[in-house]
Amino acid sequence: MSTPEPFPHLSSEEFRKYGYQLVDWLAEYFSGIDEMKVIPDVEPGEIRSMLPEQAPETAEDMEDIIADLDRVVMPGMAHWQHPGWFAFFPSGVSPVSVLGEFVAAGLATQGMMWSTAPAATEIENTVLDWLVELLGLPSSWRLDTGPGGGVLQMSASDSTHLSLAVARYHSSEAGHPTDSLVAYGSSQAHSSIEKGARIAGFRHIRSVPVDTFFSLDVDALQQQIDLDLAEGLIPTWVCSAVGTTSTTAMDPIRPIAAIAKKYGMWHHADAAYAGSAMICPEFRELQDGVELVDSYTFNPHKWLLTNFDCSVFWVADRSKLINALSILPAYLKNESSENPSAVDYRDWHVPLGRRFRALKLWFVLRSYGAENLRSFVRSHVDWAKDLEGRLMTDPRFEIVAPRTLALVCFRHVGGNEATKQLAKAVNASGTSYLTPSVIEGTDFIRVSIGSTWTERRHIEALWDLFDENAVAV
Amino acid sequence: MSTPEPFPHLSSEEFRKYGYQLVDWLAEYFSGIDEMKVIPDVEPGEIRSMLPEQAPETAEDMEDIIADLDRVVMPGMAHWQHPGWFAFFPSGVSPVSVLGEFVAAGLATQGMMWSTAPAATEIENTVLDWLVELLGLPSSWRLDTGPGGGVLQMSASDSTHLSLAVARYHSSEAGHPTDSLVAYGSSQAHSSIEKGARIAGFRHIRSVPVDTFFSLDVDALQQQIDLDLAEGLIPTWVCSAVGTTSTTAMDPIRPIAAIAKKYGMWHHADAAYAGSAMICPEFRELQDGVELVDSYTFNPHKWLLTNFDCSVFWVADRSKLINALSILPAYLKNESSENPSAVDYRDWHVPLGRRFRALKLWFVLRSYGAENLRSFVRSHVDWAKDLEGRLMTDPRFEIVAPRTLALVCFRHVGGNEATKQLAKAVNASGTSYLTPSVIEGTDFIRVSIGSTWTERRHIEALWDLFDENAVAV
Repeated sequence: MSTPEPFPHLSSEEFRKYGYQLVDWLAEYFSGIDEMKVIPDVEPGEIRSMLPEQAPETAEDMEDIIADLDRVVMPGMAHWQHPGWFAFFPSGVSPVSVLGEFVAAGLATQGMMWSTAPAATEIENTVLDWLVELLGLPSSWRLDTGPGGGVLQMSASDSTHLSLAVARYHSSEAGHPTDSLVAYGSSQAHSSIEKGARIAGFRHIRSVPVDTFFSLDVDALQQQIDLDLAEGLIPTWVCSAVGTTSTTAMDPIRPIAAIAKKYGMWHHADAAYAGSAMICPEFRELQDGVELVDSYTFNPHKWLLTNFDCSVFWVADRSKLINALSILPAYLKNESSENPSAVDYRDWHVPLGRRFRALKLWFVLRSYGAENLRSFVRSHVDWAKDLEGRLMTDPRFEIVAPRTLALVCFRHVGGNEATKQLAKAVNASGTSYLTPSVIEGTDFIRVSIGSTWTERRHIEALWDLFDENAVAV
Repeated sequence: MSTPEPFPHLSSEEFRKYGYQLVDWLAEYFSGIDEMKVIPDVEPGEIRSMLPEQAPETAEDMEDIIADLDRVVMPGMAHWQHPGWFAFFPSGVSPVSVLGEFVAAGLATQGMMWSTAPAATEIENTVLDWLVELLGLPSSWRLDTGPGGGVLQMSASDSTHLSLAVARYHSSEAGHPTDSLVAYGSSQAHSSIEKGARIAGFRHIRSVPVDTFFSLDVDALQQQIDLDLAEGLIPTWVCSAVGTTSTTAMDPIRPIAAIAKKYGMWHHADAAYAGSAMICPEFRELQDGVELVDSYTFNPHKWLLTNFDCSVFWVADRSKLINALSILPAYLKNESSENPSAVDYRDWHVPLGRRFRALKLWFVLRSYGAENLRSFVRSHVDWAKDLEGRLMTDPRFEIVAPRTLALVCFRHVGGNEATKQLAKAVNASGTSYLTPSVIEGTDFIRVSIGSTWTERRHIEALWDLFDENAVAV
C-alpha cells in the first residue's frame, strides 16, 4: 500500500492486522448475539454523551477506535439480527453478504455509467435477470431479452417514490396539470406510498378502503376513481401491495390491473417483504396477475440474506424510466435504452453515483444456491404456521388477519389492554422483541419470523413467553 | 455462530477464514493498484458472457466465488482509486473507511428511528455536528444547539433532489399551482439540478447564464426572475454551486441569497466536491455568505477519504424538512423536530431504512484527525497549483478556467482537435486517466487531483504524458 507522506493511511500491515481483528470481532458478534439483550437499555442522549464535543485534531489509535465498538456502539444497539427479533420485518444479513459488502467497499467503484464500472454494471444486469427467473416473474422483465429491466435501489421507499415520479412526469408531459393527478393505494399500504407520492408532487393521494382480509377493495377503488374523474382529476398511479406491512395482506393485482389499464394509470407492485418468498413456486399464486404491472419492487435485504441496502426495482418497459430520468439529448437516451449490454444506471434512479451493491447479492445467490434460499423461506413459513396453529387452539388468543407467509397477527381475546400488556411483557424479556400494532382500532401483536439466526427453538421460547404472560380467560 | 439446519450459513471458522482471505486480497489490491491499467480493456457484454445464464441451484464453494474476483471482476474494473485517476472527481476511499463499512454491514442495524438504532443515530448526530465545526459552517446548523441539523444521504443528487422536493412541497402547500413553480441554477450547475428538479415535479427549470469565470451571473438571474414573474410564475428554488462540476467555478452566494430572500425562495448550496476543502480555513472565502443558505450538501465520499455513499445534507431549519417528509400527525412531527436527542432520520429523506453510514465517517475522522485531513486536501491543491504553473509557462497550453481548488482545466492552444488528441493519448497510456470536456464550444482537459493513493510523482508522470504527447506549436 502506498503511503505518501504525510498521510497516515493504514499501512498494508495495519490494514491486515485491524482487518483480521474486525473479522474476529464480527464472528464473535454473530455467534454471541443469542446471549445479548435484543433491545438496549439506553436513554436518548446517552450514547452521544460518551463522545467528545469536537472531532479530534490529531490521529487516534486504531486500538482505541476499535475498542469503542464495545464501549460506545454495543450499548446502543438494537440487534436487528438477534434470533429473537420478531419485530417489523427482518433485516437481511448473512456472513457471506457482509464479506461481499466489504469487498465492494474496498473496490470503491462508481457505477454511474457502464464505462465507469463495466464489471459492477454487468454483474448487476446478470443477477437481476437471474432473479426474474428465480421469482417466476415475466421473462420480458429481463434486461437481456426483454423491454424491461431491473436496477438496485437503496430501499423500497426509493423504488416506490421513483415509480410515482416517473408516472407523474409522463402524465404532466402529456398535458395534465400536475395538481390534478391522483395516486391510489389501500389504507393498509405502506407509509412509503403516501410519503413517496407527496415527495413526487402528488396533491391527491387516496387511501382506498380494504376488505375484511385487509386487501384493497376493488369496488371502492373504482368508486373513488369515479368521484375523482367527476371532479376533473386524473387517475395516474395505483399501488398493489403484495403483502401489506401490517398483516401481509395481498391486494388483488389482476382486477387492479384492469382498472389501471382502463384509465392509463401506472401500476406499481410493492412486494418489499413478500417478494423474497416468490423464490418458492407455491407462493406465487399470492401475486396472481403480476405480469400486468408496470413496476415491481422487492427487498432482498429483508428476507433473502442480503445486507441492506439492496432493493430491486423492475420496470416492464425501461424506456419509460430512462426517458423520464435521463437528461441527455433524445438521441442519446434512445441509444442508452436500446443497448442492454452497456447500461448507464445513472438514468435508472435519482442518484448519479452508486455502489457495487450487486456484489453482495451475487455472493449470496451463489454461496447459498437457490435450493437453500427456498429452504430458508419455507422454514420460516412452516414455523409461522405452527405458531398460528398453537395460537388458534389456545382460548386466550385469536388471529386477527389471515397469515399469508411468515407473519402471524394475533391478539389476546381479553381485548386491547390485555394485548398491549402481553406485548410489553414479551418485549421486556430481553430475549424476544416484537411489534405491537393496531388495525382498525384493534390492538394486535405482529410476529415476523425471518431473522438469519432464528431457529425453531426461538419460536418455542417465544411461545413460552406468550403462555406465561397472557392472562387467563 | 448458530447454523440452524439446513441453512448453510458460513460457520464462524469459515467466516474467519474467508474474511482473512479477503482482507489480504484487498490489502494486495491497494498496494498493487499503481501497477494496474486504470481503465479496463473490455467490450460491452464481455463480463456478462463469463457468467452463467441462470443462478446456481446448489451452493457454490467460497473458494470459487472468491476466485471470481480475479477472473470476472478485475478485468471489468475501472480503478477509481488508481493514483493515476484524474477523471471526474475522486472516489473517496481509505483502508480505515473500508473497515468501517465492513463493521456497519456486519451489525446490519436499521436506522429508521432512534429507537431502532440509538447508537447509529447518535453517532451520526455527533459526527455531523463535528463537521459543522470542522468546515467552519454556521453553528446554528448543529443539531445539538441549533434549529438546523445534518443527515447522511447517498449522494449529492439525493440531497439536491430533496431540497427541491421540500421547497416545492411548501410552495404548493402555500397555494401556488405546482406547474407555476420555477427552479434556477447556472448553466454550469451539475446535471443533478435539472434531473432533481424534474423528478421533484418542477415544470420550469432555468439555466442561468454565467460570467466569464463560469460563475452564475446574478444580473441574469434577476432578469430571468423578472421574466418569470411577468408570466405569473413563482420563483421557488435556487442553487448556488460551490464548485461547478466542469471547472469548480464558485457562484456568488451572498448576492444570490439576497435575491432568494427577496422572493422567498429556497436557497440550496451544492458543494459536493468543494465542501471537503472547507476543512482548511483558507478556502472558506470561496463560499462567502454560506450562513445565508437554507440547505447545503457536500460529499465526504469525494475528497475526505470516506467511502461512497456518504453525502452530508444540512438544513438551516430542520422543521421545514421534517414537516414536509413526516407522515405522522402534526403533534408527533413537532415532538420529533423538537427533540434533538432522539432523531428519527426516516423523516429526513426519501428512504425509510438506512445503513449505519456514520460509522465509517467516525472511523475516518478519528483515525486521521483533522490536521491530517487538512494536509491531504492541501497537498492536492498544491500539486494542482504546480501543474497549473507548468501549463501556463508552456506555450503549447492555456488555462481555460480559474483554478479554485485541485481541479486544473486547460487546453492545447492548437484548438479542439489538438486538445482531444492529447486527452486520448493520455487515456490510452493506461497509467493516467482524465476527463476530456467541453465548455461553451471549447474542448478542454480536466485534471482532478484527489485520489487516495496519488503522490506527487503521479503528477510528474502525468506532466510527462502531456509533454510527450502534445504537438509542438
